[in-house]
Amino acid sequence: MANIRDVALMAGVGIGTVSRIMNGSGYTSEETRQKVMDAVNTLGYRPNELARNLLQNRSRIVGVMVPDLTHPFFSALTKYIETELYRRGYRCLICDVDQTPMRVDDFLELLQRNVMDGLITCVDRMTEKDMEDIQRPIVSIDRDWGENVPNIHSDHIKGGEMVADIFMKEGCRKILQFAPRENQTIPLLMRHQVLERIMKNQGAEVKTIYIDGTKMSKDYVKKIASKYAHCLFEADGVFASDMLAAYCMKYAGQQGIAVPERLKIVGYDGLFFGDFLEPPLTTVCQDIPKLAFQCVEVMMKLIQGGTSVESEYQVDVFLEKGGTTTGCYHSKK
Amino acid sequence: MANIRDVALMAGVGIGTVSRIMNGSGYTSEETRQKVMDAVNTLGYRPNELARNLLQNRSRIVGVMVPDLTHPFFSALTKYIETELYRRGYRCLICDVDQTPMRVDDFLELLQRNVMDGLITCVDRMTEKDMEDIQRPIVSIDRDWGENVPNIHSDHIKGGEMVADIFMKEGCRKILQFAPRENQTIPLLMRHQVLERIMKNQGAEVKTIYIDGTKMSKDYVKKIASKYAHCLFEADGVFASDMLAAYCMKYAGQQGIAVPERLKIVGYDGLFFGDFLEPPLTTVCQDIPKLAFQCVEVMMKLIQGGTSVESEYQVDVFLEKGGTTTGCYHSKK
Repeated sequence: MANIRDVALMAGVGIGTVSRIMNGSGYTSEETRQKVMDAVNTLGYRPNELARNLLQNRSRIVGVMVPDLTHPFFSALTKYIETELYRRGYRCLICDVDQTPMRVDDFLELLQRNVMDGLITCVDRMTEKDMEDIQRPIVSIDRDWGENVPNIHSDHIKGGEMVADIFMKEGCRKILQFAPRENQTIPLLMRHQVLERIMKNQGAEVKTIYIDGTKMSKDYVKKIASKYAHCLFEADGVFASDMLAAYCMKYAGQQGIAVPERLKIVGYDGLFFGDFLEPPLTTVCQDIPKLAFQCVEVMMKLIQGGTSVESEYQVDVFLEKGGTTTGCYHSKK
Repeated sequence: MANIRDVALMAGVGIGTVSRIMNGSGYTSEETRQKVMDAVNTLGYRPNELARNLLQNRSRIVGVMVPDLTHPFFSALTKYIETELYRRGYRCLICDVDQTPMRVDDFLELLQRNVMDGLITCVDRMTEKDMEDIQRPIVSIDRDWGENVPNIHSDHIKGGEMVADIFMKEGCRKILQFAPRENQTIPLLMRHQVLERIMKNQGAEVKTIYIDGTKMSKDYVKKIASKYAHCLFEADGVFASDMLAAYCMKYAGQQGIAVPERLKIVGYDGLFFGDFLEPPLTTVCQDIPKLAFQCVEVMMKLIQGGTSVESEYQVDVFLEKGGTTTGCYHSKK
């Protein structure tokens, strides 16, 4: 393959001139530019981006670390982050930590070795590294990585209020909800805490089942739904993430519990499969494209060394009325 | 941040010695190694991988190009490819061409500029570049990119035979199938051609509806299922990819067509949501982890300049018996 020397030789100019023209920097005459471009085309020369990256000490790559790419929330989030990065001239390196949790440290190492210019993480903090030592751009989605890492998340408080509003209007008095067990208060827990507080204030019963929030495979979710299927008899309202809500719906049906007549089910996330169900799932949707946009927006500020970065950003949620509550039997999707 | 010069200075050795020790190449005494490593630790030095990549003219990055990462087939495929690449010391750059089909050319350009060492593509050939000119490792999944690009795909002929076998055992005589419209014969079309041939040989009717194979959003699939919902009345067997099969099931239910009693439905792909449905979807599963493994295996051979690479690799399929056929009402998943 032709290199920059071959181009310079054929065009009869110096290597520096070819470099300036290829990078669009500095002044060169139109005549010289034409000679160089002719040589570039004749030789089929392509600048080696590895060399350019070293010169500029940047890779124009942003890493995205997810707990499990087969979970539709994270695949959609990754898609929109990647598309948004592309619009801004960046590429997206992914890291799925599902089968090897210790990959978190490996991926942070890549950030420190300049393989990436920044890192967007959706993974719970589980690393031996001290985050304070990593003087590189990191943005987090819905997870707590310490004060210095901006956290972007949905307005889960509003989400919890929306669910409470539905259950109150439907006259539900016995709520069953599934919430991730966490050691600290993180934003996504708020939806469950808010729901519990509002419903209890109204004199309703709320039973909260805590599950392992780091496990999100279909098999784990199914096991949980199956284990607590008998609790569906004692409830008149169920709140869970979409996947778990789908299995609750299935087990309710198998036990002859009519949805929505006897049991209302409300999901959380707004994932595509809720519409496959019959009736379609009523769910609080996270605005995944907006979460992705906000992440990339903050990341670009960090990469450019901007100081006007907040420690927290919140994105609005909205309701998708399905048929698992009686408000409306038709999905708007 | 400390650089290689700082380390050399503190350890009292040359830059070349530090470089050899960091790369684990060439001979150095244990005493020298210890001095250098002490300096590395004291200074918190990390080798700049951009420099190392330039030296070795490789990035240890493989690109994965997908039509739409929110489609569960492609998110699962990407996950397993990424995990397999990680095991072999490579990273995974993704490119979702959904919203900008012309990104294919941009991504090929990255391959030529050494940003990636190789490219795995799941996208239909739609590029202005002549693939013959790209003298870089490319592997394709289920898509035809010409003779020089190894094509890895499921055994779709066996898949079609399995579906025919089910419909024959169930006594179906009027088959409705949805197949992608393609200009050329590509492996994945074989399942539909094989099903049609076998069923017609048995005297059954087969109606094939051709759809746009490049569109895979939920909205498009729903529109197709809705448009042809009336055809479900005249059929006793339906064959479609899982997502379309899920909507056929939904519309059958809405029209009072009992599944599986009056209508058998068989999906293709084996995606996670088939189990959410009630009854769960009977489907021919593609072995996504094996497809991913095979892709990475062939890619590694190409990167290492191996010549023992075939132009085609086939991966076995298997049946997931659900409740949309009468063979078995319980999912094995």
